[in-house]
Amino acid sequence: MPDKDCNLDGLCYNFGDAKGGSQVNTSRFLKACRGEPHDQVPVWFMRQAGRYQPSYRALRTRYTMLELARSPRLIADVTVEAVRMLDVDAAILFSDIMIPLDGLGIRYDIRENVGPIVESPLRRPADIHGMPPFQSDRLEFVYEGVALSVEKLAGVPLIGFAGAPFTLASYLVEGGPSRTYQETKALMWNHPGAFYALMERLCAMVVEHCANQVKAGAAAIQLFDSWVGALSQEDYRTLILPHMRKIFEALKPLGVPLIYFGIGTQHLIAEMARSGATVLGLDWRTALSQARGVVGPSIALMGNLDPQCLLAGPVAVQAGVTAILDAMARDDAYIFNLGHGVPKETDPTVLQKVAAWVHQYPKPG
Amino acid sequence: MPDKDCNLDGLCYNFGDAKGGSQVNTSRFLKACRGEPHDQVPVWFMRQAGRYQPSYRALRTRYTMLELARSPRLIADVTVEAVRMLDVDAAILFSDIMIPLDGLGIRYDIRENVGPIVESPLRRPADIHGMPPFQSDRLEFVYEGVALSVEKLAGVPLIGFAGAPFTLASYLVEGGPSRTYQETKALMWNHPGAFYALMERLCAMVVEHCANQVKAGAAAIQLFDSWVGALSQEDYRTLILPHMRKIFEALKPLGVPLIYFGIGTQHLIAEMARSGATVLGLDWRTALSQARGVVGPSIALMGNLDPQCLLAGPVAVQAGVTAILDAMARDDAYIFNLGHGVPKETDPTVLQKVAAWVHQYPKPG
Repeated sequence: MPDKDCNLDGLCYNFGDAKGGSQVNTSRFLKACRGEPHDQVPVWFMRQAGRYQPSYRALRTRYTMLELARSPRLIADVTVEAVRMLDVDAAILFSDIMIPLDGLGIRYDIRENVGPIVESPLRRPADIHGMPPFQSDRLEFVYEGVALSVEKLAGVPLIGFAGAPFTLASYLVEGGPSRTYQETKALMWNHPGAFYALMERLCAMVVEHCANQVKAGAAAIQLFDSWVGALSQEDYRTLILPHMRKIFEALKPLGVPLIYFGIGTQHLIAEMARSGATVLGLDWRTALSQARGVVGPSIALMGNLDPQCLLAGPVAVQAGVTAILDAMARDDAYIFNLGHGVPKETDPTVLQKVAAWVHQYPKPG
Repeated sequence: MPDKDCNLDGLCYNFGDAKGGSQVNTSRFLKACRGEPHDQVPVWFMRQAGRYQPSYRALRTRYTMLELARSPRLIADVTVEAVRMLDVDAAILFSDIMIPLDGLGIRYDIRENVGPIVESPLRRPADIHGMPPFQSDRLEFVYEGVALSVEKLAGVPLIGFAGAPFTLASYLVEGGPSRTYQETKALMWNHPGAFYALMERLCAMVVEHCANQVKAGAAAIQLFDSWVGALSQEDYRTLILPHMRKIFEALKPLGVPLIYFGIGTQHLIAEMARSGATVLGLDWRTALSQARGVVGPSIALMGNLDPQCLLAGPVAVQAGVTAILDAMARDDAYIFNLGHGVPKETDPTVLQKVAAWVHQYPKPG
């Protein structure tokens, strides 16, 4: 892919060559993202590198989550080990949606069993207008981690990622996880100019961070909009979707699949499908076959086993996997995944079996 | 209404006369529930009696929540005070969805800022099969509270309520609030017989408890299925909906509106509309005008201002109220409400203003 200038409201990004080679490009994961015929249903799992793995828990006795996510060597080790252990069709970079905030000089921590905590939440418009510019050179450790992972993955495609702006904004404005998004919604409704400015700043960060991951070798990008389902259709359409369209428009020239994922977004599927994303990741609430009817044939779908199935024993998990494959295996634009991340209580052998079942399922021609 | 026997899987309920008189029956709330023309959009608020009220907080310095909810006189005081303070078109009984569990001898507590805690969660099939029969005579304080409230309300209709079986089951199985419903889903998938038995027991309890409230004077019934949105469409359709249909079928002879409410149930709207409920309560995520398209003209809709609007200042709240009324005021089968309960941080004067705005909005003929 040639270098390409990509314009997002006057900001220019200089994208370098995407690495990856023909083995990645002809992988069943990328083929399914593009809706091309392929041999078996591809499968990977959100949070496939994480606390359910004994090897990861062993590492965590020596390093904090952020220490792991800031070391290129450890990023690559953790990223690649999940693929080796599970025999899945894609790797996802071991990182966190908060990590690019390092490039904005925002101080945060990730607390066990709590989640991200932001030291000084952005509550007033002045907090937002005073944000320093994004400096991606503070995130070289991520891009080195991408390059090292790609090297070790030897042909298995690597998914780079970022949090989507609303979900990031919710942490920045609330200061941590929230059930109501009270402060974020108040900012959005009462200070639309400041909210818009915050979204724009985060959009620029997301685009540059994702582009840099692709430049370093990521073969696809996923945007996690985990909490956007808390918004009404109208708020999503008017206040969020325009920003998502700009992001995907800016990333399109990279030529990699663009996956857009949210939780509890069943009321937003039609709008999310208009965002410019090329793959939509859905949770378990909506049947994928019904979602296919809503989004049409030109967008790939990813999902959507209820992660609680993994904890409910062999009968439940096999029934859940089979029901999804019965409905979706013949769809060339379909990637098997969970509807959310792997629960930390999951038995790794259950996840191995799920990956194997997906690969063994006869894919109708 | 004559006494009527009502059959639910062989159980018989003897319904007495519903009280209420013509003033209640011609109220705009009941007319809207039935889709009949009326003068103004009716309005009430879920959790309109609660901690946001100075009078309620004063009572809570002397009584626990459960002490209030177990005293007929205090139930009536709290129920009626909310209507007086807000000038709304319906009262909702001051109680809790856990209260009828007194009739099953299940021990629980309601903890401030936590929610319901069940002393001995029902995890094994044997726990469920060993449940004692429901004894509604242990709940006379509720029905006396209903009768006292109706007397004091002098023509304002009173809504009785119960938790829907899945939501109740989630507390009974998890032992408290949950984000994942891990144990409930595991029971549902792995022990479908035990889960079915639990739902049946809860259905019978809900029917009898609701019928007794109507007999004591409640003019409508609401079933709160707050957490059922965590289920997939398929699980809802096969494992929950049949029970809901039985409940509404059993309650139908009472001749009162049957309201069915859930959070994050936007993927279940079409199924919930087939439950036999006569009014569907929706959260803010789905536009009511779009829901109308899904459910058709023969079911009333209730909702759906985002409760966070109430905390976001006058501009946000007025914009939110106006947008809903612009879309729904001409619909004779529409009742204004929030999309969830009143947040405890709400300024009572804001809620008073919202009620007044709804009443002042010109209702197109």
